[in-house]
Amino acid sequence: MRHTVSALVENKPGVLVRIAGLFARRGFNIESLAVGQTEKPSISRMTIVVDVADRPLEQVSKQLNKLINVLKVSDLKASEAVERELSLFKVSAKPETRAEVIEIVDIFRAKIVDASRDELIIEATGTEDKIAAIENMLAPYGIREMSRTGKIALARGGKKTE
Amino acid sequence: MRHTVSALVENKPGVLVRIAGLFARRGFNIESLAVGQTEKPSISRMTIVVDVADRPLEQVSKQLNKLINVLKVSDLKASEAVERELSLFKVSAKPETRAEVIEIVDIFRAKIVDASRDELIIEATGTEDKIAAIENMLAPYGIREMSRTGKIALARGGKKTE
Repeated sequence: MRHTVSALVENKPGVLVRIAGLFARRGFNIESLAVGQTEKPSISRMTIVVDVADRPLEQVSKQLNKLINVLKVSDLKASEAVERELSLFKVSAKPETRAEVIEIVDIFRAKIVDASRDELIIEATGTEDKIAAIENMLAPYGIREMSRTGKIALARGGKKTE
Repeated sequence: MRHTVSALVENKPGVLVRIAGLFARRGFNIESLAVGQTEKPSISRMTIVVDVADRPLEQVSKQLNKLINVLKVSDLKASEAVERELSLFKVSAKPETRAEVIEIVDIFRAKIVDASRDELIIEATGTEDKIAAIENMLAPYGIREMSRTGKIALARGGKKTE
């Protein structure tokens, strides 16, 4: 089962190694990872997507909580959080297919952020499902490069994320 | 100096530990990190933002290139790449200040993705500078939580990112 683990950590060298090490030692592959600033400059939030059963994840969460520089760990449920990720797609778009690609961009409320003679760079944001859907639609035109940020999330409905 | 390092890696447990370890051993603090899928399911792209002089970064890049499961490492220049990140802000917005917050959202072409009685969750994408600017504008209203993905980037102008 896929889980989204959110960890508040102190912004210090070595924290990432310890966290990544905990997952790697168990052979858990991290599907995506986003680490960025929070509202406090000394603290970063790591959002980790990992495919693992509930039980072993619980154990890892407990061990994460014990690590130095890790302040808080939680297992975010999709239903209770706003989840978003960002993707950049570099897509083939020759003059004769450009209009079709632009149509897809409009349907998904994505944005064209660079253009060259036979390529467009498209920025899309949304849930994982939405990003997968636009990827499927763009694939027949030729996705030359794709870069994804991995998911971030905040708790909905006036609740604190933690 | 701040650098954006992009690494194509095989999607296997342990890769992240080795890369994070290389940075940590030198005491380099990773400011942001985004790891996500690419156009090939077995390959991920890591985009690492690190504040370090040119010379030591060159050495780290060389060592990264030698690591198992690391396919390609490059130091992306902002002028040659489309750089984007995504941020979620949870902001206080009581009925009497809500209109002002919505105005800021419109100015930055951001989106409101959740609302409760006295909070809004706002999704913003753009360059680091743009995200910093919207953060500055929202700060006086009270940013309760912020989560950022870290930067991703693709080369502009029909060039390959590598």
